[in-house]
Amino acid sequence: MDAKPAIVLVSGGLDSATVLAMAKAEGYAVQALTFDYGQRHDVELQAAAAVCESMHVAPPRVIRLDLRAVGGSALTADIDVPKAGVGEGIPVTYVPARNTLFLSYALAVAEVSGAHDIFIGVNAVDYSGYPDCRPAFIAAFEKLANLATREGVEGRAIRIHAPLISLTKAEIIRQGTALGVDYSLTHSCYDPINGLACGRCDACRLRRQGFEQAGIKDPTRYHDSA
Amino acid sequence: MDAKPAIVLVSGGLDSATVLAMAKAEGYAVQALTFDYGQRHDVELQAAAAVCESMHVAPPRVIRLDLRAVGGSALTADIDVPKAGVGEGIPVTYVPARNTLFLSYALAVAEVSGAHDIFIGVNAVDYSGYPDCRPAFIAAFEKLANLATREGVEGRAIRIHAPLISLTKAEIIRQGTALGVDYSLTHSCYDPINGLACGRCDACRLRRQGFEQAGIKDPTRYHDSA
Repeated sequence: MDAKPAIVLVSGGLDSATVLAMAKAEGYAVQALTFDYGQRHDVELQAAAAVCESMHVAPPRVIRLDLRAVGGSALTADIDVPKAGVGEGIPVTYVPARNTLFLSYALAVAEVSGAHDIFIGVNAVDYSGYPDCRPAFIAAFEKLANLATREGVEGRAIRIHAPLISLTKAEIIRQGTALGVDYSLTHSCYDPINGLACGRCDACRLRRQGFEQAGIKDPTRYHDSA
Repeated sequence: MDAKPAIVLVSGGLDSATVLAMAKAEGYAVQALTFDYGQRHDVELQAAAAVCESMHVAPPRVIRLDLRAVGGSALTADIDVPKAGVGEGIPVTYVPARNTLFLSYALAVAEVSGAHDIFIGVNAVDYSGYPDCRPAFIAAFEKLANLATREGVEGRAIRIHAPLISLTKAEIIRQGTALGVDYSLTHSCYDPINGLACGRCDACRLRRQGFEQAGIKDPTRYHDSA
């Protein structure tokens, strides 16, 4: 029997690289999808391609979206990325409706390509407080997906898989390492300096701490320890 | 008190022009949003601007989305638009996840601009069988919106308004006419011929029949009666 097709959202980051390995390990024929949304850290796109290549997955389909026209986030507008540490509440790096948009595009691609499974690397533990990373959001999107599409209407259920949702960063790193993920190819930093991770934004702090807690050597090249 | 802001999705078509007039009549300060998604009928974009101007609304914000990269619909790919009449089931003019994407962008714009109300002209009666035009879809998106965003998380409920959802095309035309909508500015045809409505696609058939049933003169210039 042919492998079931699945769409996997990849960002070039640690989480989505782990998800890609998990989807492959579950036997899906994966199609990677990534987004060029005017992000400051477009080194992400190169990382996404490198991660796919390392797992013998075809290069990600890149969808361009104009989030700069929407504005409102430190990642896409002229607002400084905070460096003081992970705080309370929703940070300015939150991109309005980002995961809603990403999953909506994934749904469109899934519908066209006959896939019924979409994988996304959201995480509700070490997650910087983004509202669209919570289990209730994923469940609501899955319900929407089955109402929105031909597939759903015709009774072939669409499933949104978020296998990291209740894992800590350390658990994600342990599981990915067991599956052979090469984390040196992945990129997490929101604000890289000369191609090196800044070491101080929320993403860097959570990543560094995850490797420490997992007891696994962090392959990341940080600017502040370069 | 200042008028409450609202985002209104406008396509240049008859339905969304009516919704724009309804939102204005309800006292909202409306911001129009439209999409350039590689549609064959890009005369729609000009119609959307003309409709806004006629109602003294600022020109629509245009968001570009690359649905051609997704493919899979007669409206964006190289598939012929059917002309044989409104059939059973979901037609090839269905654009995968279109309303999901449109509402997701509207949600992002609403979140950035502080609006809590989004208006969309979907209709479940004369609707060509698209799954993402049904009341259950709208309800599911509203639920998602309140889980996905800072506004929802912080308790300021986002509402998705679909005032046409249970109206017939004739009822829409009667209500819009009462509100002063100039339907000669609107465009419905999926496949215009030399700038005139083809008169034979589903959108033309539903529009023509709507005016007939409403007993209101149809201002549309059709190619087959030109």
